[in-house]
Amino acid sequence: MEFDLIARIRDRAGSRADVALGIGDDAAVLQPAPDRQLVVTSDVLNVGVHFDAADAPADIGWKALAVNLSDLAAMGAEAAWCTLALSLPAADARWCEAMLDGFLELADAHGVALVGGDTTRGPLSLCVTAMGQVAPARLLRRDGARAGDGIWASGTLGDAAAALALGQDGGEVDPFLRGRLRRPMPRAALGAALGGLARACIDLSDGLVSDLGHVCAASGVAAEVRLDQLPASPALRSAADGATRWTWQVAGGDDYELCFTADADAGDRILAAAAAAGVTVTRIGRIVAAGAGGPRVRLLDAAGNEWDPPRRGYEHFT
Amino acid sequence: MEFDLIARIRDRAGSRADVALGIGDDAAVLQPAPDRQLVVTSDVLNVGVHFDAADAPADIGWKALAVNLSDLAAMGAEAAWCTLALSLPAADARWCEAMLDGFLELADAHGVALVGGDTTRGPLSLCVTAMGQVAPARLLRRDGARAGDGIWASGTLGDAAAALALGQDGGEVDPFLRGRLRRPMPRAALGAALGGLARACIDLSDGLVSDLGHVCAASGVAAEVRLDQLPASPALRSAADGATRWTWQVAGGDDYELCFTADADAGDRILAAAAAAGVTVTRIGRIVAAGAGGPRVRLLDAAGNEWDPPRRGYEHFT
Repeated sequence: MEFDLIARIRDRAGSRADVALGIGDDAAVLQPAPDRQLVVTSDVLNVGVHFDAADAPADIGWKALAVNLSDLAAMGAEAAWCTLALSLPAADARWCEAMLDGFLELADAHGVALVGGDTTRGPLSLCVTAMGQVAPARLLRRDGARAGDGIWASGTLGDAAAALALGQDGGEVDPFLRGRLRRPMPRAALGAALGGLARACIDLSDGLVSDLGHVCAASGVAAEVRLDQLPASPALRSAADGATRWTWQVAGGDDYELCFTADADAGDRILAAAAAAGVTVTRIGRIVAAGAGGPRVRLLDAAGNEWDPPRRGYEHFT
Repeated sequence: MEFDLIARIRDRAGSRADVALGIGDDAAVLQPAPDRQLVVTSDVLNVGVHFDAADAPADIGWKALAVNLSDLAAMGAEAAWCTLALSLPAADARWCEAMLDGFLELADAHGVALVGGDTTRGPLSLCVTAMGQVAPARLLRRDGARAGDGIWASGTLGDAAAALALGQDGGEVDPFLRGRLRRPMPRAALGAALGGLARACIDLSDGLVSDLGHVCAASGVAAEVRLDQLPASPALRSAADGATRWTWQVAGGDDYELCFTADADAGDRILAAAAAAGVTVTRIGRIVAAGAGGPRVRLLDAAGNEWDPPRRGYEHFT
């Protein structure tokens, strides 16, 4: 059965000219571009933790790849190849086909070839490794933020957290919000456009406070974020305001937007790059020198008063 | 907790000159060698399927990497980097440290840098992606076998299957056999030495009949294997003979030896290459034209009579 499944995946997987050998041998063989660095990330989605068994398999497949492509985007890399190690409680061809619908829809949209992986028995789990390439001068890292930089976020924040919270409460979930949770769109074009322009970049997977905190820690700086400037979708504004909305926006996670810093004078170039990438970006604060409290993220309301969310980010083991 | 664990893994992971950015950003950044192809494989080990929860964590870590390095060896590639996506039911620092003992012992022995991955909540599972490099002319594939080739196997076959079977029966398991199951040694030096010398190669993970069958199918040929010529360790010979031993040797799996074919006249060069790599190799049969039965593996006893094992290979979904 494993080999039927592998043959089916091979038949459906797209390819690229730089794939010398795809699915079907002991390993894939790829031809990296000269003068590029290789950028590699692995993320796993487990049933009951990252998704429900009842979720649409196409959405699960999409998201398993999306969270990895988001990491590559945050490095300024262009995605090229991926592997999928799939654990299944039982061979289920229909589920697999539907999962591949979503996985390959996103892969094809980003020109990414599925080149290998594994299929085995186990609790439902998808482990994806995505590989991309970047010119060294265009690489984005977490550790380049400087005091005085503007802090920016792409898209809107808090939508996925709202969908998750409202769904858990059993309420009606706005389709836009649900779509943001189920099918995050990696900001690949924006990440590529920010190379040489942004000073530091990270993708928002655990929540703004947590992820921007990693940038601050790596860069040895602190951040001031203006809550009233956080980009919010109309659907989110309809769902909640005040502390509830802020909490979803700064501590909810699963946004898969890019958060980056850039020279305070670079605003026009940032906006032009984002427009060319087809993504909105919003300036949400500024980088400041790390004070006595060390590298940390301060959240300020419209009156300039500091505000703390009830919990900080998504703790994987709590 | 996740970040304590990641920091600990980062502190312990080795590095290489071609790692531009290791653990701690959204993705790793690597500098591939010019004129080399990139070789990539992903394999996952799940608790209850590939190992028992009670197994020594160092052995689990070792094996999770070993099965991937074995795939790279089968391609003739030199291993360079790996990622580890680790799912854990709860944060358990002691278990993780012990797992890393085995994982990193093998990584260091092969000059492989652990450059990234993921840690998340879920049933115990290790998904490793290993990356290596190979000069195109030295790449080994499954599809190059030709009628007349000799068929070779490295090391000894059936040890791991014997250890598994004897352990399940509750009997005493010879330490050598158990070590072969728990800590397979990827045949990296042999794989690299076979580049340009072997015509086809595969690693024996599912069992000789199954894996050699993949070589035959990919190459459009058939194979005749001599059961009396299969390399058997003294411990295996003590454990069983006849049909029991043969079954472990041809259908047991988990050998992680290389099976390869080469020109019938290449025997001396094969033996010299294997000696230089410090591995024994044994000629176990020959490639023949695919007959009416199509590409298949025939097992012959000393009298030349065909013999069939009670089951063929390891079926992941049965």
